[in-house]
Amino acid sequence: MLSISQYQDIISAHFSNLVIEKEPINLYQPIQYILSLGGKRMRPVLTLMAAEVFNVDCQKALAAATAVEVFHNFSLIHDDIMDDAPLRRGHETVHEKWNINTGILSGDAMLILAYQHFEQYEPKVFRDLAKLFSKTALEVCEGQQWDVDFEQRDDVTIPEYLKMIEYKTAVLVGAAMKMGAIVAETSEENANLIYDFGLNLGIAFQLQDDYLDAFGDPLTFGKQVGGDIIENKKTYLYLKAIEFARAEEREQLLHLFSIQPSDNTDKISSVKAIFNQTKASEATQEAIQNYTFRAFKTLEKMQIDNDKKVILRSFGENLMMRNV
Amino acid sequence: MLSISQYQDIISAHFSNLVIEKEPINLYQPIQYILSLGGKRMRPVLTLMAAEVFNVDCQKALAAATAVEVFHNFSLIHDDIMDDAPLRRGHETVHEKWNINTGILSGDAMLILAYQHFEQYEPKVFRDLAKLFSKTALEVCEGQQWDVDFEQRDDVTIPEYLKMIEYKTAVLVGAAMKMGAIVAETSEENANLIYDFGLNLGIAFQLQDDYLDAFGDPLTFGKQVGGDIIENKKTYLYLKAIEFARAEEREQLLHLFSIQPSDNTDKISSVKAIFNQTKASEATQEAIQNYTFRAFKTLEKMQIDNDKKVILRSFGENLMMRNV
Repeated sequence: MLSISQYQDIISAHFSNLVIEKEPINLYQPIQYILSLGGKRMRPVLTLMAAEVFNVDCQKALAAATAVEVFHNFSLIHDDIMDDAPLRRGHETVHEKWNINTGILSGDAMLILAYQHFEQYEPKVFRDLAKLFSKTALEVCEGQQWDVDFEQRDDVTIPEYLKMIEYKTAVLVGAAMKMGAIVAETSEENANLIYDFGLNLGIAFQLQDDYLDAFGDPLTFGKQVGGDIIENKKTYLYLKAIEFARAEEREQLLHLFSIQPSDNTDKISSVKAIFNQTKASEATQEAIQNYTFRAFKTLEKMQIDNDKKVILRSFGENLMMRNV
Repeated sequence: MLSISQYQDIISAHFSNLVIEKEPINLYQPIQYILSLGGKRMRPVLTLMAAEVFNVDCQKALAAATAVEVFHNFSLIHDDIMDDAPLRRGHETVHEKWNINTGILSGDAMLILAYQHFEQYEPKVFRDLAKLFSKTALEVCEGQQWDVDFEQRDDVTIPEYLKMIEYKTAVLVGAAMKMGAIVAETSEENANLIYDFGLNLGIAFQLQDDYLDAFGDPLTFGKQVGGDIIENKKTYLYLKAIEFARAEEREQLLHLFSIQPSDNTDKISSVKAIFNQTKASEATQEAIQNYTFRAFKTLEKMQIDNDKKVILRSFGENLMMRNV
């Protein structure tokens, strides 16, 4: 097996060669643009890695990995329209650089292009990949809808929130890995286990994202620390704080999440203090550990060489040790 | 074989039973809404019909027919956002009734749901259907992009216009029929011939739409007669008129297509007069006949019973004799 950065290089090289600047250019140029913005390419890397875990050359999984990344970028374009986001990976979002209609239509084309990448597999593998892909893609839409709905609600429960991040983020991580397993034509049991591994790691990853957004080191964290607090986002930290808070803390937190001051310094430190006092930050770290542990438990059941388990486990550990 | 209205009844009954009001309701309710608005269901009817042309019970093609109709409605939702259209089939468009974000996300979900309808076929048929579907769906996106691009251009040629309507409209008609052929597992030659039959009939149909929009009988034509003229749409009639016009007529037509009077009565009659004077209306009717004739020519080559050819031909003739 290769290292993460080697898999990343394979993906990057593949996307550089994947020129789709065909006519009509107003449809394909935005696609080329978003795919060239890069990012960590974590999802396609997981597809390649999973294929090699099951003893198949990662080249065989490259088309499936490409589909996953193209789909992910489709969802970014449409989500950025819905969130009215100006920037993506430090560059203008597609609907900002062009316009909303272009964002809609180029996104649609990417969703279709993602399916086309499965066409080079033989019928049985094709169907398994496309089925998993459709199920996952629909869940991602559902997760996005829950996320939109939750913004308007103040009675979101922790299980609802977990379901939302599972659908919006984690299912694609699980599916990315399972696609590697499908391409490798391993047993259904192995395929389902690596899906669960990815799913649980994906939930842990998203919870850690919530945690780092508040408690990350400003020097190493890529985004603005406290971004979620500024936007009054009801993250896991917030929901746990509301759950654990005494009446007075609760009032204070609800107040802080109703204001939008021009200078957020005080707001951020007050909210973080409540996250700590209420032990919401501790609870979040525990949840991260629990989901990571669940992921590792599925590894034990997998019918693969032990060195492969070690690699997957250390990948998970690195992911959870990250501070960026 | 059944009659068109019998196939329509099968499709309508199927869609009434296809309740997808699951959670999150804000994602699935708009889907249920647009699918319940009805319409002629012409595309799925063609899929059922094609299956029976190749001697397979239309029930077997129902899932593929459903995919075609779901896809068509996905494209309506997203197109209506792009065109800022308030009404669809006499009812509020999805983005009007809900909002643009709902239109985007519910549309995305429909595109995925369309693929899922193929899953009940065995792997080989599934792959053939999904491949044809992806190719067609991408062409429909390209056609929509050309249509958007053409609005900003005043040098659109007739071949470009024909390519646009082929992609935006006709390929889905061809694909709808070919899907019936794929489900029936007829020869590849037959499948390609019925695709060409549908494609050419689809182009003829769209050209006739252009023609009827100007010259249809207000009493029987469903939409406002002259709608394209009011919107300064560069239809086949318009492009042919520009091609055939003498300098003075050309000036007049360009002027008429640059104004937006509050009362359009004079504008519509002046434009129609130019369409007639320049023989653009004649040329449009000739083009409709040519494409219909091409469709009928492909019938001759098809390896099917003669009575099936008669049915397909009379279907085409009815379509071309329509005044609605």
